[in-house]
Amino acid sequence: MTPDFTRPCVKDLEAYKVVPPDYNIIVNANENPFDFPDALKKELNDTILDMSLNRYPDPSATALREQLSDYTGIDADQIICGCGSDEIMSMLNQTFINPGDVVISHAPSFSMYQIWSVIGGADFVWVPDTEDLTPDVENIINTAKRTNAKMIYLCSPNNPTGSLLPRHDVADILEETNALVVLDEAYIEFKKEGDLTEIVNEYNNVIVLRTLSKAFGLAGIRCGYAVGPKPLIDMMYKVKSPYNLNKLTQAAAVIALKHRDTLLENVTILNSERQRLYEFLKGLKGITRVYPTASNFIYFEVPDGAPLYAALLDEGILVKYLKHDVSDDVDHIRLTVGSPEENDAVIKVLKRSLS
Amino acid sequence: MTPDFTRPCVKDLEAYKVVPPDYNIIVNANENPFDFPDALKKELNDTILDMSLNRYPDPSATALREQLSDYTGIDADQIICGCGSDEIMSMLNQTFINPGDVVISHAPSFSMYQIWSVIGGADFVWVPDTEDLTPDVENIINTAKRTNAKMIYLCSPNNPTGSLLPRHDVADILEETNALVVLDEAYIEFKKEGDLTEIVNEYNNVIVLRTLSKAFGLAGIRCGYAVGPKPLIDMMYKVKSPYNLNKLTQAAAVIALKHRDTLLENVTILNSERQRLYEFLKGLKGITRVYPTASNFIYFEVPDGAPLYAALLDEGILVKYLKHDVSDDVDHIRLTVGSPEENDAVIKVLKRSLS
Repeated sequence: MTPDFTRPCVKDLEAYKVVPPDYNIIVNANENPFDFPDALKKELNDTILDMSLNRYPDPSATALREQLSDYTGIDADQIICGCGSDEIMSMLNQTFINPGDVVISHAPSFSMYQIWSVIGGADFVWVPDTEDLTPDVENIINTAKRTNAKMIYLCSPNNPTGSLLPRHDVADILEETNALVVLDEAYIEFKKEGDLTEIVNEYNNVIVLRTLSKAFGLAGIRCGYAVGPKPLIDMMYKVKSPYNLNKLTQAAAVIALKHRDTLLENVTILNSERQRLYEFLKGLKGITRVYPTASNFIYFEVPDGAPLYAALLDEGILVKYLKHDVSDDVDHIRLTVGSPEENDAVIKVLKRSLS
Repeated sequence: MTPDFTRPCVKDLEAYKVVPPDYNIIVNANENPFDFPDALKKELNDTILDMSLNRYPDPSATALREQLSDYTGIDADQIICGCGSDEIMSMLNQTFINPGDVVISHAPSFSMYQIWSVIGGADFVWVPDTEDLTPDVENIINTAKRTNAKMIYLCSPNNPTGSLLPRHDVADILEETNALVVLDEAYIEFKKEGDLTEIVNEYNNVIVLRTLSKAFGLAGIRCGYAVGPKPLIDMMYKVKSPYNLNKLTQAAAVIALKHRDTLLENVTILNSERQRLYEFLKGLKGITRVYPTASNFIYFEVPDGAPLYAALLDEGILVKYLKHDVSDDVDHIRLTVGSPEENDAVIKVLKRSLS
């Protein structure tokens, strides 16, 4: 018998242990369909040949933070990098969350907010969206006040609904609660909204999460970052693992940011494809609701998602099937915008299955 | 004024924010002086050209764990990989450590055991070594019993002293305490000792930490792993960040393990150089004690380390200066074994300064 060493809050968690998907068209994980261009891979390869892999990486990711500063307009010492937003959320726990603290978010949103909060020993509360599946700002504020919430995760554009939280709503939550507000903007490049400097330099209780996994198309390298007021970021550095971002990721991220004008051209293509998919989905009678989206995916409602999911799988197409995501009466599908050819294939199956 | 969101146990920690060292000879961080060979870098480059960097990495690091299984003789499902041993220690906290739990280790040892324990909210206790700077096994066991310790970090070969903890001592600690024993074998390849399968498959309260940063010479890619009884490893998977190990690191690690016979030839060279340095240091009258080492570094005692450290720095040589590491009366230096040429340069300065 193995002794029972495990923390009570961890025992019931499900391990995230999946076989990597093997499908023709993978539109389930909000990845960018366009790979890092060969020319940039070759630049990375040249860098690797000149790199001392036997030496520890730069713990401060100096070159990368300088590039991120140039890109975001935020001072480099207000930026901290991590292995995807996941490591940043782990650091947020380790820096700010004591067991029993309350963390809240709006539902439906990114499941990792709850999972990280549970790992952090927090009491997590989902605040349901309004009927149109946008965050219920008043209820978020009231819940935060009532529970004396320590932290609030806001996701904008939101995963999985695609909704954008207007800056004035974010400002209301920042001003009317005592919580640390973590604004996850993983998908922000798909809908330029306001300026990061405005919010980060105006409020002392906000941290914004960003990533290279989505618009930059680099989910494989795991590079996320947080920007915020220097006093908060300084505290996060205290728990940062000394060498948390390996040399290869730092090098690839620097190259990506240097060539950001090229890489972000894909956003224009994807936004145009998103519009095409959205119009198509709106016109399908088997779909009961399509939600407006500010991201690289579209969330839609069907009475029963199972046969549609199966029909798509039959053609090697993997979407995200969210059974009873919002209510027991309907299902939802989250469809990532793929390449034009991938979207054509998706449209063909949907047309056959739903019209 | 920024609100005071930070956890009390984190406030007093020092952030690890250093400028990367810019010296001719870097022998302060127990890195391997030999870089990943060009032929293997080219293999990595070819892999990168074929890799979809826009897709998330394999969350289970399947190919890598298969290689590690082949290398260690441990089943792949008893292995979990992370961004260096640091991420593994963070996972150990998140899986097993409740605030107020007691964690102990032997002193002097790796400072991160204490730092991670503090971040985990644990009460950390250092148990001083015996006079010859080997772990005081009896005192470790008694302290664990007295404090009802939840976890014990053992480091063998130990950083910074180089001492090897015999397997029978590890067994005594495993058998006579109720703690989860974390045996950090980061440097084990420099002194083959027993078989990993013996200890991991015999005890239900042990987790062994390993890394590719040292003998494999890949500190830059950040790849550590833990092996242990499946029930414990299964629990750690519950807190593992879904995509914690990026694609580039997974690919480089797989290549390294495939070519491990080539890479580990460097261990023979380094062990022979270690012997040469050790004999030299033993013969220097300015050095009051040189400790036996089973690792790729040597720990020695000097009455005052400051002038020696400065003399080495003057020649562009960076060593680890551990002022009053064990007592206020003497200093210690930890010298990493470099390449033969680097060691020649170190010897030259030491000879001039100390004889």
